[in-house]
Amino acid sequence: MVNYPHPHHLTRKKKAEQPAKKVNFANRGMSFEAAINATNNYYLAHSIAVIHKKPTPIQIVKVDYPMRSRAKIVEAYFRQPSTTDYSGVYRGHYIDFEAKETRLKTAMPMKNFHAHQIEHMAKVLEQQGICFVLLHFSSLKETYFLPAQALIDFYQIDRGTKSMPLDYIKKKGYWIEMNALPQVPYLDIIENYFLGGDYYQKDSVQKK
Amino acid sequence: MVNYPHPHHLTRKKKAEQPAKKVNFANRGMSFEAAINATNNYYLAHSIAVIHKKPTPIQIVKVDYPMRSRAKIVEAYFRQPSTTDYSGVYRGHYIDFEAKETRLKTAMPMKNFHAHQIEHMAKVLEQQGICFVLLHFSSLKETYFLPAQALIDFYQIDRGTKSMPLDYIKKKGYWIEMNALPQVPYLDIIENYFLGGDYYQKDSVQKK
Repeated sequence: MVNYPHPHHLTRKKKAEQPAKKVNFANRGMSFEAAINATNNYYLAHSIAVIHKKPTPIQIVKVDYPMRSRAKIVEAYFRQPSTTDYSGVYRGHYIDFEAKETRLKTAMPMKNFHAHQIEHMAKVLEQQGICFVLLHFSSLKETYFLPAQALIDFYQIDRGTKSMPLDYIKKKGYWIEMNALPQVPYLDIIENYFLGGDYYQKDSVQKK
Repeated sequence: MVNYPHPHHLTRKKKAEQPAKKVNFANRGMSFEAAINATNNYYLAHSIAVIHKKPTPIQIVKVDYPMRSRAKIVEAYFRQPSTTDYSGVYRGHYIDFEAKETRLKTAMPMKNFHAHQIEHMAKVLEQQGICFVLLHFSSLKETYFLPAQALIDFYQIDRGTKSMPLDYIKKKGYWIEMNALPQVPYLDIIENYFLGGDYYQKDSVQKK
């Protein structure tokens, strides 16, 4: 990474232009993934839920065993995940989700979701797991909780469409209010709309 | 691997000595891990459950980007898993387990279980997940389903003990009958003893 000189007055000016309510993890230079990991750590530390990010799947080709030191992988490649990135348990319920970020302001590119991930989500729903995607629009500083069924429907019906409109996400999903801690309180949505009495409140494709 | 000449008459004699009921995956040269993966594939293909092995956690140090080819990891190391190896969903329930194999005939070495894995299991139970270990005694060709609480209890009470006696496993756990397909039908145990009415039948430490 190139270290450009840091113009402090510019940074300050930019910060001052942002409305106060938009102060969230993004302002603190935290990536969406880091914010979710911090949220999961918060849930874990407070015995609220046990949800982990799965390790990146890697195909190992060659391992060296240097004398007196641990095994060293010297040739390996990234593999495409066949499931979602996050899974765990909340009050007995199986939780399964994927998190995606875009700088676009009106849509989420569908290239973020692979066919086998969509298939995995469908199988999880079939087993009555709670499955969804967390979609972060970094330019808007907005995050949405979209039930997996809405993503699957869009994928199947509009297969040729290259991106999912924010309007669709707003209609089928739920806006997540960003907090200081936990940063991305997605369990609130599950508690209020999936496990509470309001499950069918929204025009949700989760109906079975 | 060294390829020793293969004495067919010896192999045959050995096989003939084994009682018929012991014919299982081990006789077909399948490792316990492979048998569990095949079981999970069977459950997945038949829409019975969605349970996957997590990828091995790896610490990536250096990645090369050769021209016109995919990213190549050239320095990486194995990391100790902080959770269990297998997790997923069965009829809405969160399933979480670890699988271990030993050639010993009377006990399972406790070095197979790390402190943070034990801690993870305790947290999963706290969240009402279904958590257990599958223990395979390859010399005996026997496999047991041990509820996580029994492992945690043994770990906490007999912290200094280097191995968990098979007698303890038999008392607190469940024998799994090996099949052709699925090879290690552990969901039968869950269905019969955890989700059915027989949950408290056994002198089980799962009582809450």
